[in-house]
Amino acid sequence: MKVAVLRIGHRFVRDDRITTHAALVSRAFGSYKIYMTEVDDSIKETLNRVSARWGGLTEFRIEIIKDPLKLIRKWQKDGGIVIHLTMYGINIDDVVSTIEKEDKRILVIIGAEKVPGEIYELADYNVAIGHQPHSEIAALAIFLDRLFKGKQLRKNFSGAQCKIIPMSRGKRVVQMEGG
Amino acid sequence: MKVAVLRIGHRFVRDDRITTHAALVSRAFGSYKIYMTEVDDSIKETLNRVSARWGGLTEFRIEIIKDPLKLIRKWQKDGGIVIHLTMYGINIDDVVSTIEKEDKRILVIIGAEKVPGEIYELADYNVAIGHQPHSEIAALAIFLDRLFKGKQLRKNFSGAQCKIIPMSRGKRVVQMEGG
Repeated sequence: MKVAVLRIGHRFVRDDRITTHAALVSRAFGSYKIYMTEVDDSIKETLNRVSARWGGLTEFRIEIIKDPLKLIRKWQKDGGIVIHLTMYGINIDDVVSTIEKEDKRILVIIGAEKVPGEIYELADYNVAIGHQPHSEIAALAIFLDRLFKGKQLRKNFSGAQCKIIPMSRGKRVVQMEGG
Repeated sequence: MKVAVLRIGHRFVRDDRITTHAALVSRAFGSYKIYMTEVDDSIKETLNRVSARWGGLTEFRIEIIKDPLKLIRKWQKDGGIVIHLTMYGINIDDVVSTIEKEDKRILVIIGAEKVPGEIYELADYNVAIGHQPHSEIAALAIFLDRLFKGKQLRKNFSGAQCKIIPMSRGKRVVQMEGG
């Protein structure tokens, strides 16, 4: 299943670290791209540093866009579906199997505090990761976890320099040949 | 299952919003308390505002502590277990049933960038939410989701002023009587 993430409503500086976490989760949990509007260069640098070390430089990309609504409309015109994560939507566990059956490219939208009403209208599905306020990072993680059925937690990326050997104590990292 | 969260390594100002998200996830995903070291007052204010509106003022608390290591040792002495979330640990899906079988009070530790080596030694379990770098907010959410088997996504809190009626479009919020 091909999944991209769209981050909207990023407020410059104030949201930089939240957006960095959102991008890292997008990568680690199996999406292939995050679209963002204007963001600090440090976010791209962090992701490139992570991908250089842990792999996936060619598997995950950040793309800066100017107009999220245009992207959403193009995505749908090209046959993909758009999912907006919001606490006001339908509970993920009531809708995830319907989304799977669509078997289409997915664009998942995560907002910051305020999301324009238009997004609720344009989205094919407004999906709630529970109905309590929490975090768009957590919402994205749970959504991708449900969609990929936890398999993303075993994901390896190509071209990694390093790989973790899971340990009950301490840290063990092996250098990869040719990585 | 009684679960508390311990947030360590918070860097003043820089991590405020990340820590706020961690606290909101702790509340929304079924833990009853988050312990923090020195944090900005705005974090407590945000959580109190959320609990006043959405419920749980008496079900979820923030406690400021001075010495995380002391808390960890006391937790274990009192018969609880301590779980440290780290990408270097044992994959959650390989260890969650063992943790459940312990049937003890759980303290789950989430760090910021650097976590002292002592934490790895003291923890009863070092648990990885996958072995790629991502976000302590996502890690906490997935851990609690695994532990509570998704039931936290239907959670209602006592004393809520408002409750969401899930909708496929738009927002519907009802005022609770006596809330």
